[in-house]
Amino acid sequence: MTLVCYRCGDEAETGARCACGEPLWVQTDATEFSWPESSEQGMWRYADLLPTEPLPGVGSVVGGTPLLRTEQLDEYAGCTLWVKDESANPTGTFKDRGSAVGVARALEAGVGDGGDDARDGADANRNWVGTVSHGNMAMSMSAMAASAGVNCLVLVPDDIPPERLGHIAQYAPELVQVEGEYGRLYYDSLEMSGVRFVNSDTPYRVAGQKTTALEICEAFATAHDGSARSPFAGSAVPKSRCLPDAIVAPVSSGGHASAIWKALRELREANLLDLIPRLYFVQAAACDPIAQAFRAGADTVTPVEGDETVAYSIANGDPPSGNRVLAAVRAVGGAVLSVSDDEIRDAKRRFARRAGLCVEPASATTLAGIRQLSKSGELSADDYVVAIATGTGFRERSAMPTTPRSVPLSDLSEGVRSLVSGVQRANM
Amino acid sequence: MTLVCYRCGDEAETGARCACGEPLWVQTDATEFSWPESSEQGMWRYADLLPTEPLPGVGSVVGGTPLLRTEQLDEYAGCTLWVKDESANPTGTFKDRGSAVGVARALEAGVGDGGDDARDGADANRNWVGTVSHGNMAMSMSAMAASAGVNCLVLVPDDIPPERLGHIAQYAPELVQVEGEYGRLYYDSLEMSGVRFVNSDTPYRVAGQKTTALEICEAFATAHDGSARSPFAGSAVPKSRCLPDAIVAPVSSGGHASAIWKALRELREANLLDLIPRLYFVQAAACDPIAQAFRAGADTVTPVEGDETVAYSIANGDPPSGNRVLAAVRAVGGAVLSVSDDEIRDAKRRFARRAGLCVEPASATTLAGIRQLSKSGELSADDYVVAIATGTGFRERSAMPTTPRSVPLSDLSEGVRSLVSGVQRANM
Repeated sequence: MTLVCYRCGDEAETGARCACGEPLWVQTDATEFSWPESSEQGMWRYADLLPTEPLPGVGSVVGGTPLLRTEQLDEYAGCTLWVKDESANPTGTFKDRGSAVGVARALEAGVGDGGDDARDGADANRNWVGTVSHGNMAMSMSAMAASAGVNCLVLVPDDIPPERLGHIAQYAPELVQVEGEYGRLYYDSLEMSGVRFVNSDTPYRVAGQKTTALEICEAFATAHDGSARSPFAGSAVPKSRCLPDAIVAPVSSGGHASAIWKALRELREANLLDLIPRLYFVQAAACDPIAQAFRAGADTVTPVEGDETVAYSIANGDPPSGNRVLAAVRAVGGAVLSVSDDEIRDAKRRFARRAGLCVEPASATTLAGIRQLSKSGELSADDYVVAIATGTGFRERSAMPTTPRSVPLSDLSEGVRSLVSGVQRANM
Repeated sequence: MTLVCYRCGDEAETGARCACGEPLWVQTDATEFSWPESSEQGMWRYADLLPTEPLPGVGSVVGGTPLLRTEQLDEYAGCTLWVKDESANPTGTFKDRGSAVGVARALEAGVGDGGDDARDGADANRNWVGTVSHGNMAMSMSAMAASAGVNCLVLVPDDIPPERLGHIAQYAPELVQVEGEYGRLYYDSLEMSGVRFVNSDTPYRVAGQKTTALEICEAFATAHDGSARSPFAGSAVPKSRCLPDAIVAPVSSGGHASAIWKALRELREANLLDLIPRLYFVQAAACDPIAQAFRAGADTVTPVEGDETVAYSIANGDPPSGNRVLAAVRAVGGAVLSVSDDEIRDAKRRFARRAGLCVEPASATTLAGIRQLSKSGELSADDYVVAIATGTGFRERSAMPTTPRSVPLSDLSEGVRSLVSGVQRANM
């Protein structure tokens, strides 16, 4: 498999970064690609565009997530809205797509330079993968590796909350807390021998991550073609359009955003796009280096310190694919924007109360961003927009202060009658 | 739609219980049913066997959950194991299937006797559904109702943990804490006017719940027929068998267990079964009234007080469909068994560490039960067994005490080298 730099076009066989400093991705020939005939529902239906065989175990059932028409959010969003619900993945986030390909690659290639050593020791009839993450990606890598029989090393910061550590630890990876500047680890880990690190935007992760966008486009494109065996056919997509006007996702490292762009490039190469959806990526205002660069009209992202945000899982002050995200939105149209924590909390509430979806705050940035775009006139009620809800909110500690009324069993029946006939709830 | 009693055969148009005291379910004519041609992936592909139209909103994307071959658990399980991963449903559990049909029924039928009143008041241009639950079913009903624009009343016990209350409250149902004996509420709520209660085993819930078993059987039956458009075709099912030897699920109220039985009855009526999978249902030993009755050879379940168990979501001491579960396992073969909290915890750990699946303790009873059955010789290595993992473990507070080693950034590279070459981990 050949890797290539999106910017300078240089090629490489291994590694994650081009000599020019920018991230590599996997070169794909999509000219012959057409929507699969298979009725397989998961991400591996796109075998022709993927660089590895399916991962065994839980990695075999990643993807194929619902694309949900959320009419009840249209007014708030100011457009015609769909939600791609990535919480349906095995570990509850889109990360599983990239982890599955990343771990599959490690299995196929061995662990690289350190491979022979790795087979001598105590744990040693298994390969090693690793990741630098203290959240969703750590859980995802640990689960995919556990079920495929691969050792997994997870480097977490010293101050990781115990709760989150427990969620990762259940899959029994080798967990190491690193004392020192956590941000440097992204680059340092890629140099380590013996462990194949699958970080936020490494080439094989991006290759898996692009399937989110492939599924969205296939759902729209094949919804009404009659002949398709696509598992997405018949989903709530109107006949008049074959693609959404815009796709909106949170952005942190820029790995997923790059992958969405790559999916569109491949589909265009395959002549399957008669419209290129605009791409909007959203950051939390407390830590928004890519949005700042976009607003400044810059080609490169300047790292920021960043403050705390409720959307902690996208708070990356030094995004390794930040420049590639800027290139993406400039190539296909769109923007990188930021939303406040108040906007995020309000959007998260709407997701639950109006759409029945429990998303993590990072995912709620999409709806908050869409609302901004509608208010500014960049999106309108007629626009077909897909928000990618990247991860589940189930793991969030509830921040919902609730003191429901308490009713004696003997008064319950009367209380219910009052309630449903619209008598003041306070009577109950 | 006609309801019918599984035991005495009496019919009814509404209600949840037969005059004989046993639960009703929806009468279905399955004689003409065949596996759908549609490639639709969710539960609504079984429209011919469902009593309602699809629910709008998040209810439209329920079901179509992965059926996962979990080779790495075979040795522990003592059989050839698949896991049906119900955590992929929108609120993370199998409950969504029944809630979707239950809420759809309320939309189609209005709220019943109290319907006219309900349209006069403040909240009143919407119908009311309700449920008696302090866990997964409450979340599921609240989410389905929220996204379909239906009011939802949730009756919870006075001592519900605040954390769980918050998970339910996010969908903004009308939450009422009931002071008094919570167990009575199942029956009391069914008598209340103005609110259509969709409880654990009410007929329309059971109608939706049966789709878990329909999907399992379709996955096996159509895996290799070549012509099928089934989204399950191509899943990891061997050619030699067209059905599993056994299906294993947790049991609490008996609603889901009854639904699995009903699915098998319908498929047999449609001539789609050439083998009837045995049914095994598992309880936590701390609260196992149905298993006690099964062991005693009784036809009816005697309520128990029950102790606390880690599998709190299946701790029902007075299961309203308990007798129906006994009838089910006696009709098709199988058993109701109990497992200790230690066995449950161990099985939950295996799910995560070997299969990459984070399940709630109630779901882990399946693997613990299968291990028991293998040890006693009732299942063997050649048996094809499907465990239904009914719900996500993401909402569980982590019980994993973890103290990973901490390494200075400067020593990390050396530490990683030692680790992967199998040098004692303590050196790191």
